[in-house]
Amino acid sequence: DSKLKIFTCNSNPKLAHQIADYIGIPMGESHTTSFSDGEIQVKLSESVRGCHVYIVQSTCLPVNDNLMELLVMVDALKRASAKSINVVIPYYGYARQDRKARSRDPITAKLVANLIEKAGAHRVITMDLHAMQIQGFFDIPVDHLLGVPILAQYFRSKQIENPVVVSPDHGGVVRARKLADFLNAPLAIIDKRRPEPNVSEVMNIIGNIEGKTAILIDDIIDTAGTIVLGANALMEGGVKEVYACCTHPVLSGPAHERLENSPLKEVVVTDTIPITNPNPSSKLTVLSVAPLMGEAIIRVHEELSISKLFEIE
Amino acid sequence: DSKLKIFTCNSNPKLAHQIADYIGIPMGESHTTSFSDGEIQVKLSESVRGCHVYIVQSTCLPVNDNLMELLVMVDALKRASAKSINVVIPYYGYARQDRKARSRDPITAKLVANLIEKAGAHRVITMDLHAMQIQGFFDIPVDHLLGVPILAQYFRSKQIENPVVVSPDHGGVVRARKLADFLNAPLAIIDKRRPEPNVSEVMNIIGNIEGKTAILIDDIIDTAGTIVLGANALMEGGVKEVYACCTHPVLSGPAHERLENSPLKEVVVTDTIPITNPNPSSKLTVLSVAPLMGEAIIRVHEELSISKLFEIE
Ligand SMILES: Nc1ncnc2c1ncn2[C@@H]1O[C@H](COP(=O)(O)O)[C@@H](O)[C@H]1O
Ligand SMILES: Nc1ncnc2c1ncn2[C@@H]1O[C@H](COP(=O)(O)O)[C@@H](O)[C@H]1O
Repeated sequence: DSKLKIFTCNSNPKLAHQIADYIGIPMGESHTTSFSDGEIQVKLSESVRGCHVYIVQSTCLPVNDNLMELLVMVDALKRASAKSINVVIPYYGYARQDRKARSRDPITAKLVANLIEKAGAHRVITMDLHAMQIQGFFDIPVDHLLGVPILAQYFRSKQIENPVVVSPDHGGVVRARKLADFLNAPLAIIDKRRPEPNVSEVMNIIGNIEGKTAILIDDIIDTAGTIVLGANALMEGGVKEVYACCTHPVLSGPAHERLENSPLKEVVVTDTIPITNPNPSSKLTVLSVAPLMGEAIIRVHEELSISKLFEIE
Repeated sequence: DSKLKIFTCNSNPKLAHQIADYIGIPMGESHTTSFSDGEIQVKLSESVRGCHVYIVQSTCLPVNDNLMELLVMVDALKRASAKSINVVIPYYGYARQDRKARSRDPITAKLVANLIEKAGAHRVITMDLHAMQIQGFFDIPVDHLLGVPILAQYFRSKQIENPVVVSPDHGGVVRARKLADFLNAPLAIIDKRRPEPNVSEVMNIIGNIEGKTAILIDDIIDTAGTIVLGANALMEGGVKEVYACCTHPVLSGPAHERLENSPLKEVVVTDTIPITNPNPSSKLTVLSVAPLMGEAIIRVHEELSISKLFEIE
């Protein structure tokens, strides 16, 4: 029976420790620092020979540093004779560069997949990829977890009366459908249309929302533009209150300020990306993915199905 | 006859423009910027279909951003049907992580080579690799240029009387030998020894330096610790004056201050890495590698030998 070890770099050390606690093992000892010129240095302070190693690292801001830390860590573990190298990427950065949206675009989500494989990873465990097709960018197994059960459990416990789950665009309907099912709630969709070029968008709401409590759901909240426009449209459309939730709180640029000044009552996110803003919005509620990730690692290590992780009690 | 195009990312745009000027072609139009969350975005504003493309980008500080810019640019060019993708890396970062110096060390110089190849590069043109073996980390052709002829030409034009070329350590003797040959000067070596563990190093100078003008040469000046200790030892050993030179001015941390406060008379470097410090040392002289790089690109494109680039008139 081969040994399981968890290592972390610098994106999510807290989450990594919580995952190790959940599993009931100590963190693998390593130090990922920088030389004076900014080059990353990885030191493994314990043997990994013959071990099944799991590295927890999100590729969030600073995305290129975090990605390179992950790659150098994989390289070090490979050369130190780890038996398998499993990369746990709670938030997979560059996922929105997943196709040639314009001619001569790079497909950076595929590039990143190639880099991770080339470095020597044997498996990826990740969550709510912006595009599910990214699983196919890898030639190694990808275990894809969902944040919806965690978000659903939280909203259930709030016992919101007369809820309606709302997708902020057509791309997110499948995700919103899942949340609506978990909550036994109806579904609505914000339908953005630009009647003519250079005429501003019309936010048309498909579905009955009047007097209800809306729960907007997205995979990523980045600058919070989409979600706040959605919340405004819902308020104008006559909802009683509006909540928002997502798995990945990228929250870059004006996001915190926008959330704070919006009609949103609460913004529920997970800890796939740590909140590092010195003045975070007071509306944020952060749920931990540590039990989910910990359970996934245990099940993968024991070669059990992970399908039970897509359910809630 | 296939078309030659030059592109740049953000590490060395000035050098790239000078190279394009030397060759006598306009710069390829592209924009490498960041999204709000720090993810790199590359836009190619002109067709590269069927072209032989050269990308000029050093992997200096911010090293991980510069490396990722290069990789995304290669990905974009590949998907835009460039005929060949040649990466011109005046300064190759991570070159000092070239072997397992301690157990469980990564070999990041090899990782970086793998990443560049995997992204889709067909050829590397670089200069003064910290370890020549890094050429062997690639399975694609590597054209390796030397800064010594440029440095030698400068010191020749200064007509220094009674010079001695000094290597700051045993690893740099071959490079120092080349400079000494170009200048018709004798060679000396600083021989560092630690008589016992935890006893400070002794700087012993091998060769005759008394009354001469010393020219220290290294590949990289990073924090400037080595070069300034060497300069001090040479002054104590009785040289008249001491110059330093290198190809790659990394100049991180306390480097500029150390150079300024040292007995060094002048520090001659090249522009493989731009000087970005707001208070650079007044002792720096920067020589351009643009003619060398430009000539190398022309010769590679025309399938001519580059051996003449290792000579001086
Ligand atoms: N990091 C990013 N921040 C903002 N927009 C992005 C980012 N990466 C890609 N995009 C753009 O987002 C669009 C794809 O998003 P989506 O249509 O939601 O899949 C494309 O137009 C991309 O150019
Ligand atoms: N970016 C860096 N800054 C300072 N030292 C480094 C860097 N990268 C590697 N090293 C160390 O430099 C040593 C190799 O340098 P050298 O012996 O000159 O080839 C090794 O001990 C490395 O750990």
